[in-house]
Amino acid sequence: MKNVKLGLIGFGTIGAGVIKILSSNADIIQERLGASVQIAKIADMDITTDRGVPVEPGVLTTDVDDILNDPEIEIVIELIGGYEPARTFHLKAIQNGKHVVTANKALLAKHGEEIFSAVDQKGLSIGFEAAVGGAIPIIRSIREAFAANKINTIEGIVNGTANYILSKMSDENCDFQTALKEAQEKGYAEADPTFDVEGNDSAHKIAILTRLAYGVPIDVDEIPLQGITRITPEDIECAREFGYRIKLLAISKFDGNGLDVRVHPAMIPVDHPMANVNGVLNAIRICDDLMEENILVGHGAGSLPTGSAVVGDVVEIIRNSLVGVGTRVPAQSFQKSHVKPIAIKKIEEIEAEYFLRFRVKDVPGVLAKISGILGNHSISIASMIQRGRDDDGKGVPLVMMLHLSNEKNIQDALVEIDRLDVVCEKSNLIRVES
Amino acid sequence: MKNVKLGLIGFGTIGAGVIKILSSNADIIQERLGASVQIAKIADMDITTDRGVPVEPGVLTTDVDDILNDPEIEIVIELIGGYEPARTFHLKAIQNGKHVVTANKALLAKHGEEIFSAVDQKGLSIGFEAAVGGAIPIIRSIREAFAANKINTIEGIVNGTANYILSKMSDENCDFQTALKEAQEKGYAEADPTFDVEGNDSAHKIAILTRLAYGVPIDVDEIPLQGITRITPEDIECAREFGYRIKLLAISKFDGNGLDVRVHPAMIPVDHPMANVNGVLNAIRICDDLMEENILVGHGAGSLPTGSAVVGDVVEIIRNSLVGVGTRVPAQSFQKSHVKPIAIKKIEEIEAEYFLRFRVKDVPGVLAKISGILGNHSISIASMIQRGRDDDGKGVPLVMMLHLSNEKNIQDALVEIDRLDVVCEKSNLIRVES
Repeated sequence: MKNVKLGLIGFGTIGAGVIKILSSNADIIQERLGASVQIAKIADMDITTDRGVPVEPGVLTTDVDDILNDPEIEIVIELIGGYEPARTFHLKAIQNGKHVVTANKALLAKHGEEIFSAVDQKGLSIGFEAAVGGAIPIIRSIREAFAANKINTIEGIVNGTANYILSKMSDENCDFQTALKEAQEKGYAEADPTFDVEGNDSAHKIAILTRLAYGVPIDVDEIPLQGITRITPEDIECAREFGYRIKLLAISKFDGNGLDVRVHPAMIPVDHPMANVNGVLNAIRICDDLMEENILVGHGAGSLPTGSAVVGDVVEIIRNSLVGVGTRVPAQSFQKSHVKPIAIKKIEEIEAEYFLRFRVKDVPGVLAKISGILGNHSISIASMIQRGRDDDGKGVPLVMMLHLSNEKNIQDALVEIDRLDVVCEKSNLIRVES
Repeated sequence: MKNVKLGLIGFGTIGAGVIKILSSNADIIQERLGASVQIAKIADMDITTDRGVPVEPGVLTTDVDDILNDPEIEIVIELIGGYEPARTFHLKAIQNGKHVVTANKALLAKHGEEIFSAVDQKGLSIGFEAAVGGAIPIIRSIREAFAANKINTIEGIVNGTANYILSKMSDENCDFQTALKEAQEKGYAEADPTFDVEGNDSAHKIAILTRLAYGVPIDVDEIPLQGITRITPEDIECAREFGYRIKLLAISKFDGNGLDVRVHPAMIPVDHPMANVNGVLNAIRICDDLMEENILVGHGAGSLPTGSAVVGDVVEIIRNSLVGVGTRVPAQSFQKSHVKPIAIKKIEEIEAEYFLRFRVKDVPGVLAKISGILGNHSISIASMIQRGRDDDGKGVPLVMMLHLSNEKNIQDALVEIDRLDVVCEKSNLIRVES
């Protein structure tokens, strides 16, 4: 039976998960694969801390070249994350004829073009199922299962930290800071949670999916971003009253011409299959011309879920290798000649439904003023609720749902509305995806 | 650019969908595949009816041998369904060195062993993503994405007809016959709906998934089956009161020893991600040792969703063929030497939670009698509701949720309870999956 040697760069949480899986599930992997898989080397700066997983003597090294230059290692797993030195390691591994497997969404979102081209040029494979949605088989589904489909919409809850916080706020009626603190205590949020709660991580993931689904590479820095830090318990309560839940969504829509990619909190109807995707769970919804929709739900992070996606990719590459094949699917899902960059719409150019929340003085004529401004900007109101009376002089919340509107019109109207003397604080908008 | 020739056997609803997709989406398929795909022959008994899709002259034939014996045809798509002559066509196509793609769950559930062995022996591929869950990429996910995972549970809403009927009964408080009639009018149920509403179709699908997930072929005729025809609006209403919805579930659980496979209506909690999978949608939940759970939701039937899964398989096989490979994943997911049949537990051997519904006389002491019998059979009651008073002499409904119990004990207790003179009609049980 063939024995395939792997090198692992980065012995953190996911790396330890991979080592654990390759050991504990060696039997079932072998029963399916018909080959054995061996970790030949693990490179990390720290080779003394015990990760609680079995490591053979002589496997650990602090010198990444022990992996990159070892001719016996066929597959390099990179799990250090970030742009550099991950990029350099990938390129060197590929240059040396090794397949690569990674969970590094930041790298692929930013330097995908370079890495995918290098892999294609050498006739090698790159596995990155773990980069988006952890254990959710979304990369494989887009590249293979939906190969005949003209995908037009991707909507994802792809950040477990943000979803945990919003679920917590919704279930326990607590504010953002309280929910964040608990997420940190439980290990679901990092000490600096910026990338998760401000949407950057979701942007990396939707950039990767956009490339695969439409053959369209995008500049991840151009994706309009809005995080969840401004969401209040009041927003969540109002959403509930209107029959919605608030989720941080990564959205990508493509009609063949315009490309609408963005990350922001969005209200989705309670009976939507993604409305009940709570806690650290992720979900990705794909729509196209043939199958209407497909929704995939699972654990988007964590040592074993993400580790299992990494090992799934390793198995796929070895299955190719056992029949003498370096690669059989273009890294970015389309033939290179059909990959064309398209600019992303600016947020002002999009159309959506909206939820608006104002805090206004409890005096007659307020609604007339606000609805007058909205009307002047061609915005029509679908429904409206004024909640309570002003007992403390801080104004009352006035919330409304709008019909399909142009974002620029909304933004312009909000500037005017916020100047009104009856408006007590900066108004808030949440986009609605139904 | 390489041109790959296909033969299609069976020009029904899904067949027409496949032809439509190969024509309307030829551009995107080619952009991804780097090859063109041509329907060389379509065989059907009826070659005169217009299916509303483009067919080149000379392509239609009533003689299936025009496909099976054509050396230029690389892939045969079988979409006639049923055991014979589908089985014979598959075996002959494989014998003649052709890859096969099919949506035929009945055939693979019953004759999988023979077909998969034939394919493996000839080093060919078989695609059957369309056989389970239509457009849901479940076959590919089990065979490839979850290759490192010890799957232990599969729960599926895999019959759109039954799900439509139960959703309708739930949403509109109507009875089974009314919902069935509307499903038939809308084309969601066949004139003879037996296979869908009695669970046979779901059994075929769970048999296929069981084989792939655990490497365990099963005799589909041994799967305990219970359909949805006995579900009443009252059951649905009671389920709602207890916080559940009723779904027809195909269940497969494997702990390495005992194999628990069954199809029956089950109550699932309203906040379960599958509780909101309504209408003709399907959903499949996979649990294992690494990723906890993965739930895939999508359209399980219909011309284009199912057709897109068929064409996805065609693309996969051509991608192999373009790099000179006949097959790279064992047809049944495991190496042949590790595929071992295991007997399915009889329904009396399982353990589950249960919902019981009795109709009893509205007299004192009824509950004592019933709970006494349950207690004698080591069954403990979690909660109980007696609804209304007996105004019409037909008795009152008494419903209860049980803790985890042994099915045999329940069945024995129900026989005794149904003999009580205070019990007005045969009692009903619904298993609970939480």
